[in-house]
Amino acid sequence: GLTLGRQLTIDYYNCRKEALGDCDALEKAFVDAARSSGATVISSSFHAFNPQGVSGVVIIAESHFTVHVWPEHRYAAVDIFSCGEHIDMERAKKTLQEFLGAGKVVVSSDMGRGIF
Amino acid sequence: GLTLGRQLTIDYYNCRKEALGDCDALEKAFVDAARSSGATVISSSFHAFNPQGVSGVVIIAESHFTVHVWPEHRYAAVDIFSCGEHIDMERAKKTLQEFLGAGKVVVSSDMGRGIF
Repeated sequence: GLTLGRQLTIDYYNCRKEALGDCDALEKAFVDAARSSGATVISSSFHAFNPQGVSGVVIIAESHFTVHVWPEHRYAAVDIFSCGEHIDMERAKKTLQEFLGAGKVVVSSDMGRGIF
Repeated sequence: GLTLGRQLTIDYYNCRKEALGDCDALEKAFVDAARSSGATVISSSFHAFNPQGVSGVVIIAESHFTVHVWPEHRYAAVDIFSCGEHIDMERAKKTLQEFLGAGKVVVSSDMGRGIF
Protein backbone atom coordinates (compact mmCIF):
# COMPACT_ATOMS: atom_id res chain seq x y z
CA GLY A 1 0.00 0.00 0.00
CA LEU A 2 0.88 3.65 -0.54
CA THR A 3 0.23 6.44 1.98
CA LEU A 4 0.77 9.97 0.71
CA GLY A 5 0.83 11.95 3.95
CA ARG A 6 0.87 11.86 7.71
CA GLN A 7 -1.07 14.21 9.94
CA LEU A 8 -0.58 14.84 13.63
CA THR A 9 -3.14 16.85 15.60
CA ILE A 10 -1.73 18.11 18.88
CA ASP A 11 -3.61 19.78 21.70
CA TYR A 12 -1.54 22.00 23.98
CA TYR A 13 -3.21 22.74 27.32
CA ASN A 14 -2.16 24.96 30.21
CA CYS A 15 -0.01 27.16 27.98
CA ARG A 16 1.75 30.35 29.04
CA LYS A 17 -0.77 33.10 28.40
CA GLU A 18 1.91 35.50 27.15
CA ALA A 19 2.98 33.01 24.47
CA LEU A 20 -0.58 32.88 23.14
CA GLY A 21 -1.12 36.61 23.04
CA ASP A 22 1.65 37.71 20.70
CA CYS A 23 0.78 37.06 17.06
CA ASP A 24 4.22 37.99 15.68
CA ALA A 25 6.04 35.81 18.22
CA LEU A 26 3.72 32.90 17.42
CA GLU A 27 4.40 33.27 13.70
CA LYS A 28 8.14 33.31 14.27
CA ALA A 29 7.94 30.29 16.61
CA PHE A 30 5.95 28.25 14.09
CA VAL A 31 8.18 29.16 11.16
CA ASP A 32 11.22 28.26 13.26
CA ALA A 33 9.63 24.98 14.40
CA ALA A 34 8.84 24.07 10.80
CA ARG A 35 12.42 24.81 9.72
CA SER A 36 13.93 22.95 12.66
CA SER A 37 11.85 19.88 11.77
CA GLY A 38 13.47 19.85 8.34
CA ALA A 39 10.62 21.46 6.40
CA THR A 40 11.01 23.98 3.58
CA VAL A 41 8.88 27.02 4.40
CA ILE A 42 6.95 28.45 1.45
CA SER A 43 4.80 31.07 3.19
CA SER A 44 3.16 31.92 6.49
CA SER A 45 0.01 33.81 7.34
CA PHE A 46 -1.04 34.67 10.91
CA HIS A 47 -4.08 36.64 11.97
CA ALA A 48 -4.85 38.18 15.38
CA PHE A 49 -8.47 38.37 16.43
CA ASN A 50 -10.12 41.03 18.54
CA PRO A 51 -10.19 40.95 21.56
CA GLN A 52 -7.92 37.88 21.55
CA GLY A 53 -6.96 34.70 19.72
CA VAL A 54 -4.67 33.96 16.79
CA SER A 55 -5.05 31.72 13.75
CA GLY A 56 -2.01 30.90 11.69
CA VAL A 57 -0.69 28.67 8.98
CA VAL A 58 2.74 27.89 7.66
CA ILE A 59 2.66 26.34 4.20
CA ILE A 60 5.68 24.12 3.72
CA ALA A 61 6.82 22.29 0.60
CA GLU A 62 5.80 19.12 2.46
CA SER A 63 2.26 20.39 3.38
CA HIS A 64 1.44 22.55 6.46
CA PHE A 65 1.55 23.59 10.09
CA THR A 66 -1.59 25.27 11.45
CA VAL A 67 -2.40 26.73 14.86
CA HIS A 68 -5.43 28.24 16.57
CA VAL A 69 -5.05 29.66 20.06
CA TRP A 70 -7.53 30.54 22.78
CA PRO A 71 -5.61 32.59 25.36
CA GLU A 72 -8.63 32.65 27.66
CA HIS A 73 -8.43 28.86 27.89
CA ARG A 74 -4.62 28.70 27.72
CA TYR A 75 -5.14 26.28 24.81
CA ALA A 76 -3.59 25.88 21.36
CA ALA A 77 -4.75 23.47 18.62
CA VAL A 78 -1.88 22.51 16.31
CA ASP A 79 -1.85 20.40 13.15
CA ILE A 80 1.22 19.15 11.37
CA PHE A 81 0.58 17.65 7.95
CA SER A 82 3.53 16.25 6.06
CA CYS A 83 4.22 14.28 2.94
CA GLY A 84 7.61 12.69 2.65
CA GLU A 85 9.59 10.96 5.33
CA HIS A 86 12.16 13.56 6.30
CA ILE A 87 10.10 15.83 8.60
CA ASP A 88 10.93 15.28 12.27
CA MET A 89 7.45 15.72 13.77
CA GLU A 90 8.55 14.76 17.27
CA ARG A 91 11.09 17.57 17.23
CA ALA A 92 8.49 20.06 16.00
CA LYS A 93 6.09 18.94 18.73
CA LYS A 94 8.71 19.47 21.44
CA THR A 95 9.92 22.80 20.06
CA LEU A 96 6.36 24.09 20.14
CA GLN A 97 5.73 22.67 23.60
CA GLU A 98 8.70 24.63 24.91
CA PHE A 99 7.61 27.85 23.23
CA LEU A 100 4.01 27.51 24.40
CA GLY A 101 5.04 26.44 27.90
CA ALA A 102 2.33 23.81 27.76
CA GLY A 103 1.72 21.82 30.93
CA LYS A 104 -0.22 19.12 29.11
CA VAL A 105 0.23 17.90 25.54
CA VAL A 106 -2.19 15.48 23.88
CA VAL A 107 -1.61 13.96 20.44
CA SER A 108 -5.31 13.66 19.64
CA SER A 109 -4.66 11.91 16.32
CA ASP A 110 -1.82 10.55 14.23
CA MET A 111 -3.13 9.39 10.88
CA GLY A 112 -2.16 8.52 7.37
CA ARG A 113 -3.79 10.60 4.64
CA GLY A 114 -4.30 9.39 1.10
CA ILE A 115 -4.19 5.64 1.54
CA PHE A 116 -4.13 3.47 -1.60
CA GLY B 1 -17.74 19.79 29.41
CA LEU B 2 -16.61 22.43 26.93
CA THR B 3 -15.29 21.70 23.42
CA LEU B 4 -13.76 24.64 21.59
CA GLY B 5 -13.59 23.35 18.03
CA ARG B 6 -14.56 20.61 15.62
CA GLN B 7 -12.30 19.26 12.92
CA LEU B 8 -13.24 17.17 9.94
CA THR B 9 -10.58 15.51 7.80
CA ILE B 10 -11.91 14.47 4.41
CA ASP B 11 -10.17 12.37 1.78
CA TYR B 12 -11.36 12.84 -1.79
CA TYR B 13 -10.36 10.01 -4.10
CA ASN B 14 -10.87 9.55 -7.85
CA CYS B 15 -11.08 13.29 -8.47
CA ARG B 16 -11.28 14.96 -11.86
CA LYS B 17 -7.68 15.58 -12.85
CA GLU B 18 -8.50 18.98 -14.36
CA ALA B 19 -9.97 20.17 -11.06
CA LEU B 20 -6.72 19.34 -9.27
CA GLY B 21 -4.43 21.01 -11.78
CA ASP B 22 -5.71 24.58 -11.67
CA CYS B 23 -4.45 26.45 -8.60
CA ASP B 24 -6.58 29.57 -9.17
CA ALA B 25 -9.75 27.54 -9.70
CA LEU B 26 -9.02 25.54 -6.54
CA GLU B 27 -8.56 28.72 -4.52
CA LYS B 28 -11.83 30.14 -5.81
CA ALA B 29 -13.66 26.86 -5.11
CA PHE B 30 -12.38 26.69 -1.52
CA VAL B 31 -13.15 30.33 -0.77
CA ASP B 32 -16.64 29.83 -2.23
CA ALA B 33 -17.14 26.61 -0.24
CA ALA B 34 -16.09 28.36 2.96
CA ARG B 35 -18.50 31.24 2.31
CA SER B 36 -21.36 28.92 1.37
CA SER B 37 -20.88 27.02 4.64
CA GLY B 38 -21.48 30.26 6.54
CA ALA B 39 -17.84 31.08 7.30
CA THR B 40 -16.29 34.54 7.26
CA VAL B 41 -13.22 34.45 5.02
CA ILE B 42 -10.21 36.35 6.38
CA SER B 43 -7.53 35.38 3.85
CA SER B 44 -6.50 32.64 1.46
CA SER B 45 -3.12 31.45 0.27
CA PHE B 46 -2.65 28.80 -2.43
CA HIS B 47 0.63 27.56 -3.84
CA ALA B 48 1.22 25.50 -7.01
CA PHE B 49 4.14 23.09 -6.98
CA ASN B 50 6.33 22.11 -9.91
CA PRO B 51 5.63 19.87 -11.78
CA GLN B 52 2.25 19.42 -10.12
CA GLY B 53 0.33 19.62 -6.86
CA VAL B 54 -1.28 22.46 -4.94
CA SER B 55 -1.35 23.34 -1.23
CA GLY B 56 -3.83 25.88 -0.01
CA VAL B 57 -5.40 27.36 3.07
CA VAL B 58 -8.37 29.59 3.70
CA ILE B 59 -8.25 31.26 7.09
CA ILE B 60 -11.76 31.94 8.31
CA ALA B 61 -12.89 33.82 11.39
CA GLU B 62 -13.99 30.41 12.70
CA SER B 63 -10.61 28.66 12.00
CA HIS B 64 -9.58 27.13 8.63
CA PHE B 65 -10.00 25.10 5.47
CA THR B 66 -6.85 23.44 4.10
CA VAL B 67 -6.24 21.34 1.00
CA HIS B 68 -3.37 19.40 -0.51
CA VAL B 69 -3.80 17.79 -3.91
CA TRP B 70 -1.91 15.07 -5.75
CA PRO B 71 -3.15 15.17 -9.36
CA GLU B 72 -1.08 12.09 -10.22
CA HIS B 73 -3.14 10.12 -7.68
CA ARG B 74 -6.39 12.02 -8.35
CA TYR B 75 -6.46 12.65 -4.58
CA ALA B 76 -7.16 15.67 -2.38
CA ALA B 77 -6.70 15.88 1.43
CA VAL B 78 -9.06 18.44 2.96
CA ASP B 79 -9.38 19.67 6.55
CA ILE B 80 -12.17 21.80 7.90
CA PHE B 81 -11.56 23.20 11.37
CA SER B 82 -14.28 25.28 12.94
CA CYS B 83 -15.10 26.88 16.24
CA GLY B 84 -18.67 27.94 16.76
CA GLU B 85 -21.80 26.10 15.80
CA HIS B 86 -22.93 27.93 12.69
CA ILE B 87 -20.64 26.42 10.04
CA ASP B 88 -22.44 23.91 7.82
CA MET B 89 -19.63 21.38 7.33
CA GLU B 90 -21.83 18.91 5.48
CA ARG B 91 -22.61 21.57 2.90
CA ALA B 92 -18.93 22.44 2.52
CA LYS B 93 -18.08 18.76 2.08
CA LYS B 94 -20.66 18.34 -0.68
CA THR B 95 -19.76 21.58 -2.45
CA LEU B 96 -16.13 20.46 -2.60
CA GLN B 97 -17.09 16.95 -3.70
CA GLU B 98 -18.95 18.43 -6.67
CA PHE B 99 -16.09 20.72 -7.61
CA LEU B 100 -13.49 17.97 -7.30
CA GLY B 101 -15.68 15.42 -9.07
CA ALA B 102 -14.63 12.89 -6.45
CA GLY B 103 -15.83 9.32 -7.00
CA LYS B 104 -15.06 8.35 -3.40
CA VAL B 105 -15.21 10.52 -0.27
CA VAL B 106 -13.96 9.33 3.11
CA VAL B 107 -14.38 11.31 6.34
CA SER B 108 -11.22 9.97 7.93
CA SER B 109 -11.84 11.78 11.23
CA ASP B 110 -14.42 13.98 12.91
CA MET B 111 -13.08 15.18 16.25
CA GLY B 112 -13.53 17.73 18.94
CA ARG B 113 -10.51 19.96 19.61
CA GLY B 114 -9.84 21.64 22.93
CA ILE B 115 -11.84 19.48 25.30
CA PHE B 116 -12.22 20.68 28.90
